[in-house]
Amino acid sequence: MLHPRKRIEIVVEAVQAEAVTELLDRLGAPGWTILPVQAGRGRQGLRQGGDPGGVFDNVLVLCIASEAVAARVIEARDELLGARPAIVSVSDCGVLRAEHF
Amino acid sequence: MLHPRKRIEIVVEAVQAEAVTELLDRLGAPGWTILPVQAGRGRQGLRQGGDPGGVFDNVLVLCIASEAVAARVIEARDELLGARPAIVSVSDCGVLRAEHF
Amino acid sequence: MLHPRKRIEIVVEAVQAEAVTELLDRLGAPGWTILPVQAGRGRQGLRQGGDPGGVFDNVLVLCIASEAVAARVIEARDELLGARPAIVSVSDCGVLRAEHF
Repeated sequence: MLHPRKRIEIVVEAVQAEAVTELLDRLGAPGWTILPVQAGRGRQGLRQGGDPGGVFDNVLVLCIASEAVAARVIEARDELLGARPAIVSVSDCGVLRAEHF
Repeated sequence: MLHPRKRIEIVVEAVQAEAVTELLDRLGAPGWTILPVQAGRGRQGLRQGGDPGGVFDNVLVLCIASEAVAARVIEARDELLGARPAIVSVSDCGVLRAEHF
Repeated sequence: MLHPRKRIEIVVEAVQAEAVTELLDRLGAPGWTILPVQAGRGRQGLRQGGDPGGVFDNVLVLCIASEAVAARVIEARDELLGARPAIVSVSDCGVLRAEHF
């Protein structure tokens, strides 16, 4: 049996990832996972990972949370967008363990 | 035209990934993809990838499968949770090639 | 408030990624993100990343787009499948900024 939750996916510059995860923590997210990004194209053109300092690298922050937490993230839109994410997307998912998310 | 399938996403310690993919194989999954994880926070606190041995690294196992296979994965809940995944989430997707998934 | 969009996820050999992103660009995708893949199993057996040349590595191309762009990607099925992707999956999501996607 699965329990309905929200899957929040945020692509953001690595140097801004902590601002995003701190916001998620503050809004009650049960956790998050950061995946490396290799390259991308967005509104500001091409972005290639692996530059010497890694400062222009993006990461993908994945957060599975309740609908209530997701609603708070969406309400915190202005603060979230302050981290200049390339993508903020939310989708439906189900999780095995209701008590974890 | 798209064919409805399930998208199973499992975040688990790298050392447990093989237990998860063996379970997926046994339950009839047509394949799976493993993505590296850079860092994360869960119920057990912060987890940073890139430690010398890599033994504490997490990975993300992505599996697109039929509803029947997804149901078997959910039924195998106890065995799956034995690998201590941080996340098991399932969502709906559509695939181009019905014969592949 | 979220605006409905499509989340397109394509797992493909790294050497074919540019063919996929050029197709997405041509069909009007607002951007895309490439994530590294560590390993996978598909119809052609096991695939381990990290070989010396990296030529057999897969990547995951993630693209958030309007329903119209997603429809064009699905219509371009033959060209897309020419890049021999392991996975092409499409799911529903919502985005914060309608004007970006």
